[in-house]
Amino acid sequence: MTFSAIKRFLIGDPFPTSMDIHERLDKVRALAVFASDPISSNAYATEAIMSVLIILGSQSLALTWPLGLAVASLVLMVVFSYIQTILHYPDGGGAYTVAKDNLGEFPSLLAAAALLTDYILTVSVSVSAGVRAVTSAFPETYDYRVQMAIFAIIFITWMNLRGVRESGTIFAIPTYAFVGGVLLVILLGVGRYFQLFGLSAIPVMEHSVPSSTSLTGLAYIWLLLRAFSGGCTALTGIEAISNGVQAFKPPESKNAVKTMVAMGIMAMSLFIGITFLATHIHLVPEETESILSQMTKAITGRNFLYFWVQSFTAAILFLAANTAYQDFPRLSSFLSKDGFMPRWMQNRGDRLVYSWGIAVLALIASIIVIVFQADEIAMLPLYALGVMLSFSISQAGMFRLMGRIAHLKPGQSIRTLVTNIHYERGARWKQALNAVGSIVTFIVFIILMSTKFLEGAWIVIAIIPVLVYMFYSIRKHYESVAAALSTKELQPASLLDVADIVIVPIGDVHRGSLRALMYAKRLSKDVRAVCVMTSPNAKEHVLRRWKRFPKLTRRIKLIPIEYDYRDVITPVVQYIENIINSDEFSNQLITVVIPAFVPKQEFGRLLHNQSAAQLQWALRQYKNLVIINVPIHIDSKM
Amino acid sequence: MTFSAIKRFLIGDPFPTSMDIHERLDKVRALAVFASDPISSNAYATEAIMSVLIILGSQSLALTWPLGLAVASLVLMVVFSYIQTILHYPDGGGAYTVAKDNLGEFPSLLAAAALLTDYILTVSVSVSAGVRAVTSAFPETYDYRVQMAIFAIIFITWMNLRGVRESGTIFAIPTYAFVGGVLLVILLGVGRYFQLFGLSAIPVMEHSVPSSTSLTGLAYIWLLLRAFSGGCTALTGIEAISNGVQAFKPPESKNAVKTMVAMGIMAMSLFIGITFLATHIHLVPEETESILSQMTKAITGRNFLYFWVQSFTAAILFLAANTAYQDFPRLSSFLSKDGFMPRWMQNRGDRLVYSWGIAVLALIASIIVIVFQADEIAMLPLYALGVMLSFSISQAGMFRLMGRIAHLKPGQSIRTLVTNIHYERGARWKQALNAVGSIVTFIVFIILMSTKFLEGAWIVIAIIPVLVYMFYSIRKHYESVAAALSTKELQPASLLDVADIVIVPIGDVHRGSLRALMYAKRLSKDVRAVCVMTSPNAKEHVLRRWKRFPKLTRRIKLIPIEYDYRDVITPVVQYIENIINSDEFSNQLITVVIPAFVPKQEFGRLLHNQSAAQLQWALRQYKNLVIINVPIHIDSKM
Repeated sequence: MTFSAIKRFLIGDPFPTSMDIHERLDKVRALAVFASDPISSNAYATEAIMSVLIILGSQSLALTWPLGLAVASLVLMVVFSYIQTILHYPDGGGAYTVAKDNLGEFPSLLAAAALLTDYILTVSVSVSAGVRAVTSAFPETYDYRVQMAIFAIIFITWMNLRGVRESGTIFAIPTYAFVGGVLLVILLGVGRYFQLFGLSAIPVMEHSVPSSTSLTGLAYIWLLLRAFSGGCTALTGIEAISNGVQAFKPPESKNAVKTMVAMGIMAMSLFIGITFLATHIHLVPEETESILSQMTKAITGRNFLYFWVQSFTAAILFLAANTAYQDFPRLSSFLSKDGFMPRWMQNRGDRLVYSWGIAVLALIASIIVIVFQADEIAMLPLYALGVMLSFSISQAGMFRLMGRIAHLKPGQSIRTLVTNIHYERGARWKQALNAVGSIVTFIVFIILMSTKFLEGAWIVIAIIPVLVYMFYSIRKHYESVAAALSTKELQPASLLDVADIVIVPIGDVHRGSLRALMYAKRLSKDVRAVCVMTSPNAKEHVLRRWKRFPKLTRRIKLIPIEYDYRDVITPVVQYIENIINSDEFSNQLITVVIPAFVPKQEFGRLLHNQSAAQLQWALRQYKNLVIINVPIHIDSKM
Repeated sequence: MTFSAIKRFLIGDPFPTSMDIHERLDKVRALAVFASDPISSNAYATEAIMSVLIILGSQSLALTWPLGLAVASLVLMVVFSYIQTILHYPDGGGAYTVAKDNLGEFPSLLAAAALLTDYILTVSVSVSAGVRAVTSAFPETYDYRVQMAIFAIIFITWMNLRGVRESGTIFAIPTYAFVGGVLLVILLGVGRYFQLFGLSAIPVMEHSVPSSTSLTGLAYIWLLLRAFSGGCTALTGIEAISNGVQAFKPPESKNAVKTMVAMGIMAMSLFIGITFLATHIHLVPEETESILSQMTKAITGRNFLYFWVQSFTAAILFLAANTAYQDFPRLSSFLSKDGFMPRWMQNRGDRLVYSWGIAVLALIASIIVIVFQADEIAMLPLYALGVMLSFSISQAGMFRLMGRIAHLKPGQSIRTLVTNIHYERGARWKQALNAVGSIVTFIVFIILMSTKFLEGAWIVIAIIPVLVYMFYSIRKHYESVAAALSTKELQPASLLDVADIVIVPIGDVHRGSLRALMYAKRLSKDVRAVCVMTSPNAKEHVLRRWKRFPKLTRRIKLIPIEYDYRDVITPVVQYIENIINSDEFSNQLITVVIPAFVPKQEFGRLLHNQSAAQLQWALRQYKNLVIINVPIHIDSKM
């Protein structure tokens, strides 16, 4: 079974490029793919607010509701901003493209670095959180958590390599099952809370926790801000669709906007519903049980619906990773097209997905999972930082764009760097919303960073500039390659002459080396067979055999090099280097013919010294050296 | 810092081949190198007898002394046999060479496989035993035992890669310190036991252990045989010198014999001394403390000499591995010269040691250490089996040789397969000793195998035939390579014609591809530039640029291949395959010129698609294909 047969078996038959359009996502699948990250945040966002407020005692938990409403309005603002982004940048690219078009290169790379970091963390955090859900249910699996997390990454990677459509289909079920289950619980909860339709009231919990500290003034406000920032984890993943507009069936941006609206409504309903109920039935965050689990249990009891919600919560936590599998490779391809990432990251694989981006994401996320031993609590301080920074930059960009649009007259349209903009109504209002959004998300970024700096946020703050530096370095490299390959001022004469000399390193006189010498004789009259002799015996042996083929070896100079070390590569390289540096052949292409035997079986290669391969590797550094491989294949039986 | 600079720093400057003689071992160093394995056996051989006898109760421990004497006589017999081997096979090779010369190929490969297996186990077992000595003293290091064992292997490997002489010098100190310390304890012990020189008597231990079972008849004899076999671990390593005769300064075999005698005396003194004292001061084997430690403590008390012996016991256990580092690479090189192992295993590295053999040994031993988690108790059932089998085969071989010598008349000498033999006196007597030695060691082999079969000995029994099969397969491969390269019936005409066609796959028209085309034009009038176009845009782009260089591209056929997949290698390979299979060019050498750009920094390579390398790899399978690399180097800054 060959490599390509295995690949075909795992990934499926290759798709032709023209099938691209069939591989696009319809709205139902797209919602499942792009919404699994933002929707999964509902599993913990409310709890993130409450676990800060509890410091002030359980009576302060009532503040969760107004803070939750504040978070919800921020979510609305950001959703609105990204709808604008999709409409104005229908080719996708989200924060990166918006920043590039409106703020310049550096901010765009900053946003890209922040987002890429966060996408990697999304994968690591979400599979680890999913694994925690499993190990909580089955504590005996705890020792295998890293293996389980890696297995989950491998599975999600595999599905994504099989194509966008296929992974969208498979991963849609758990997403909708989670949303449906939680919505049902919320409806039931609201019904019971207001005692509608004759439903019985929910027994209100009354275990009060005293305040562990009493804060006033600035400290109190700071604590509220921290609680608010915790709730802002509900925002993560909202930007996903804006990067992936081109994954939608046409009309792309129209479908993307509709999906964005549906996602916003879904995520909002869940967040507001959970926050409302958690506050009003007086839940208290506990270490051993999540708020969502407490709430479900209080409303439905431990019955079928409870287990449905619990198991699909685990599933959706795993699946938040899937959204990153859409966005990381796509954002990388945008950077790659602009020369900031390796060029092969814009190549699409057999199934029309950015296979390299997927592989890089899976690899780095796996390393992080191993380093952190699949402990998502330890990773959380690193998470959500990057996405907040990108929100802020992106909305700052939209602020600039709306400012430019506001200057247009009705019917007027102009071309920006990458898109066309037209007059539109209410640009000033939109601009104001963007300003507020940008400032608030930046404040959240600062709060997240300062409260979690020592717990790990510093790593992200350190990595983002490193990535930006890397982007610039890569582009610099491509620019110099382009300059070197440029044909702008090319004169045919500057392509270098071919020197009338051919060097053939040989180890012995056999069918393989004779074939190489014969080939070399066709290229030049000055053929030199270079042979390193490490002992007098070896020398005698080669000379004796050389004389047996006078017809073939006529007009070929045999150059014996006596050498008192065992490494035969060095003297050959030395000989060739001397030729290259000689005045006679300066600035000419020198040709080296290397005879090599190729065993039919891969395994057979292990049995040979591989001198040919070593020599070729050693010669790689020399400019103006043309290397010719004359192979002789050997059908050996093992 | 380049790779070769790092290598030089770690390993040292290369030695010229002519320095070989200076790198040889004098007797003092050789004794330390080759004796560390057999001498280290004294740390446990006596105990191995006692721990079987204790089943019959502590009064049976008195049998240790006669059994010990029986083991000692077997040791003498084997030492004598190997002295004969060294004298008759001064080029070394031990059991393998003796068996090859006297019994045939199959027995020789069996002996070699058994020895190689045992040498690998020697390394794993001895470093693990050394680590156990450390973890017993410092229990808090127990969790790091695998790391410590791997570190020890790395250290011993490093020293050995620096050269035979250097490792001999460094590792001599602990060997002699151990021998000296234990000898002193034995002398003191014997003095006190017989109350010589006014020394006080040793307080005799009297904690009696009842028999846990009462055995009679065959079962009793079987138990005695098992105890005897346990004691035979004292034999392991005795063969070491016979493989390594060529490591000695000249006169090699004379020095080797002298060292062998010195080693025999040393090992015997220790073994007999320890066994005598352990029996006569009535020591009882205990799980928590070794017999050697009990004995030393009883004789000297817990003073300086006790700690000296304990710490150098740990050191010599580590160092037993060092003997295997001499023998495994050397035996592999013998096999390699005969074509049974990869040819590169006979190449000596910069420091005139068989670097590849050392590396292979270290690698496999490390894997075993990891698999067995450095638990040498679990590995012991696998150990000593191989060496017993090789003893038996080797002495059977010497039995045949002595038989042939016995037929010679005084003054007569003949040539065997690999050596010269002369008339000598007492050949019949020597033959009889060899017969006894061969049979007894074979019985020990059978006992070890059957008593430990299920505990792991089966692994060795399974691996030895696999190795022998591998030896034969490798030789078969080399034979077919030799046949394919043979020039015996070579007619110059059979070296294949060169077809008048050159194929140049190009990705774009740039300085690099133009240079390749120019080179190709020198080779043939029929140059075909093959370009895969994955989109109409790309096609138009290439055609436009192509027309810009009419002078260069004149007389070159541009062959555009339109392709609806992203993988550009496949269609090029397909095109070339069609050319190869066409009638026009059958049985001719087809030339492919591949333009490739070579970034100056290694890192830069990561930024390119590597299509050139991929294409070359894909074309590797085709016979009669000459591949020419025309590079263009790029001095990019990163």
